[in-house]
Amino acid sequence: PVNIWFKIADTGCKAKKLGEDDPRRIIHACKVGLAITLVSLFFYFNTLYDGFGVAAMWAVLTVVVVFEFSVGATLGKGVNRSIATLLAGSLGVGAHHLAVLSGEKVEPFAIGTTVFLIAALMTFIRFFPKMKARYDYGLVIFILTFCLISVSGYRDDEVIAMAHKRLSAVFIGGATAVLICIVIFPAWAGDDLHKQLATNMEKLATFLQGFGDEFFQISESEITEDKKASLQAYKSVLNSKSTEETLANFAKWEPRHGRFRYRHPWDQYLKVGALVRQCAYSIEALNGHLSLENQIPYEIREKVQQHCTKMSTESSSALAQLALSIRTMTRSSVADSHILKAKVAATSLKSSLKTGLWPDTDLLQIIPAVTVASLLVDVVTCTANVGEAVNE
Amino acid sequence: PVNIWFKIADTGCKAKKLGEDDPRRIIHACKVGLAITLVSLFFYFNTLYDGFGVAAMWAVLTVVVVFEFSVGATLGKGVNRSIATLLAGSLGVGAHHLAVLSGEKVEPFAIGTTVFLIAALMTFIRFFPKMKARYDYGLVIFILTFCLISVSGYRDDEVIAMAHKRLSAVFIGGATAVLICIVIFPAWAGDDLHKQLATNMEKLATFLQGFGDEFFQISESEITEDKKASLQAYKSVLNSKSTEETLANFAKWEPRHGRFRYRHPWDQYLKVGALVRQCAYSIEALNGHLSLENQIPYEIREKVQQHCTKMSTESSSALAQLALSIRTMTRSSVADSHILKAKVAATSLKSSLKTGLWPDTDLLQIIPAVTVASLLVDVVTCTANVGEAVNE
Repeated sequence: PVNIWFKIADTGCKAKKLGEDDPRRIIHACKVGLAITLVSLFFYFNTLYDGFGVAAMWAVLTVVVVFEFSVGATLGKGVNRSIATLLAGSLGVGAHHLAVLSGEKVEPFAIGTTVFLIAALMTFIRFFPKMKARYDYGLVIFILTFCLISVSGYRDDEVIAMAHKRLSAVFIGGATAVLICIVIFPAWAGDDLHKQLATNMEKLATFLQGFGDEFFQISESEITEDKKASLQAYKSVLNSKSTEETLANFAKWEPRHGRFRYRHPWDQYLKVGALVRQCAYSIEALNGHLSLENQIPYEIREKVQQHCTKMSTESSSALAQLALSIRTMTRSSVADSHILKAKVAATSLKSSLKTGLWPDTDLLQIIPAVTVASLLVDVVTCTANVGEAVNE
Repeated sequence: PVNIWFKIADTGCKAKKLGEDDPRRIIHACKVGLAITLVSLFFYFNTLYDGFGVAAMWAVLTVVVVFEFSVGATLGKGVNRSIATLLAGSLGVGAHHLAVLSGEKVEPFAIGTTVFLIAALMTFIRFFPKMKARYDYGLVIFILTFCLISVSGYRDDEVIAMAHKRLSAVFIGGATAVLICIVIFPAWAGDDLHKQLATNMEKLATFLQGFGDEFFQISESEITEDKKASLQAYKSVLNSKSTEETLANFAKWEPRHGRFRYRHPWDQYLKVGALVRQCAYSIEALNGHLSLENQIPYEIREKVQQHCTKMSTESSSALAQLALSIRTMTRSSVADSHILKAKVAATSLKSSLKTGLWPDTDLLQIIPAVTVASLLVDVVTCTANVGEAVNE
């Protein structure tokens, strides 16, 4: 029993943390409750219930399955559901009439065959990548509505009245969900995508900022665990692709809001995101060298340290600036100058390696330094690419 | 009009390709059609329809939304839906009875409040990562069923009969979907995960196999476009995380099949997958150096080429062997010997760099070679890690 209480308390703590991390989650939960309570009014008031009858159920059903966290997802599902219900409803009524014409005996077979064909065809269409990304839900609802309308039609000849009621209920449910989602503290997928891109760039900047110190072990003081953790934050960027694509898909459904207009170039975000990930891959390779024991002899360290640190901090500043200019949606030339400085540092590193005579140094000992330098050059290149893409 | 015909033809081609790439897609589409046709029999036969009435609709609805491509996904959704309907149905009936006790005037308010609270609570629970991964669908259905049952109860006092019919219909629909999914050419998510892991490792092996030749430009003959494309196949591994996690989640629902038992250690696959991705990140860094123009002076090339090529091909063979031993589910020591050889090559490269006098060579010219060598060492380390994890 103590164990159970402990588990309950633990769950409570987790719930508190979830709510604190993103208070919009609590708001979202209340919004869903509100929307469902609103559509269930159809059942309480006689005037409303008389119009719809059992079909009012479809309004509740629609709200529950359509209401998602972000406006884009809700709108996407709502629009998909409404249009699919409309199309499939009309087609279902048509199929029913054709089946009735075919005579009483043939009717079940005619309906059965149509249902089989349409269901199989639509299921196959769901595999098209483009359909899957934007209209997957619509296709499911299309199959559902078509089958229900044409099959129920066999039992209930007032197919048109039924389809009409059901369609209205779906519209009302979808509209309620979308309205409440947009009106009360909306959570925009576009905002999230925008912020996530900037945050990802900042994570890389944090790593590069700390990298120089860490690698050359400049600061004698113990590096705290906290700082180590913040250096490793960039790891989440490596796997950011699917989240970004989902958010961009949702964002495309969203109307004008705040600083974003409808048809904001969301694909550009995916492009920048891909470049940022490219940068993160190089950083991942750098990170591998961080954990190796590096005993770089003093004379070599002296030669490369300055340039490497410079490259790393300048790339870091450039990324931080680019993140800032994404956040503020302004074009800034500060990042360009940082990139330029990083490039200059890369060039002077190269020439110092070229001109500097390396008398009797053990080549093996230089390897870590050279590798790191070379990877940093990659990072600088990536950063420059990100800079170009952001300014587009 | 020509344009339209062109588009239709284009879509046809795409559909053909989708079907050829994975014929299971066509089978899946037919299976869905069949399952829906089967449950719609409830409407055609009087004996069946008399028992269920309109509730037969829920069987069709369940089949449409539960039937997924893989057995794991279908089973997961089916189990979620059945259990959630059962729980929420009982709770809904209970809430209805309590509300009736509270008197006619208070009833709507009592129901409204309960619906709001339960809906908000369950929506919030969906944010828990663990619940989201496995029980998200169940929670949605819980909200849906609870609201429908308790709200409809206000209009129809035969709540228990209604809930019972609906629950039976959902069970029948879920069972039909699951049975047809498992019995006719089942597509197991576990198989897919298993194969994908092996394929990913083979992609890396292909890259490493070709890398030596490409980098040192050994073969004078033009490298064909086809070969270039196969070298770049590894890129898909970089972003494989979300697919692997989804498949593993589905696979956990699957019963014993073929060579996999229930509770096959799917998490181990995720672990190996993460290590394979780690390896892919190093390869990505290597690939960056492939595209750079590399003018390595002859004397340097001579020194490093042999060892680098050895490291690369041995790692490649090791990965290919590991992939094979995953495919055949056998433990093989061949991979270990390849890893050992790669490690030996790495050591001898290091010592050749150490002992070899590098008279008057321009350090700048060595950098690409040294960097590549160093990255190859990383790849060898990663490969060794993968080897260990696979053998576990």
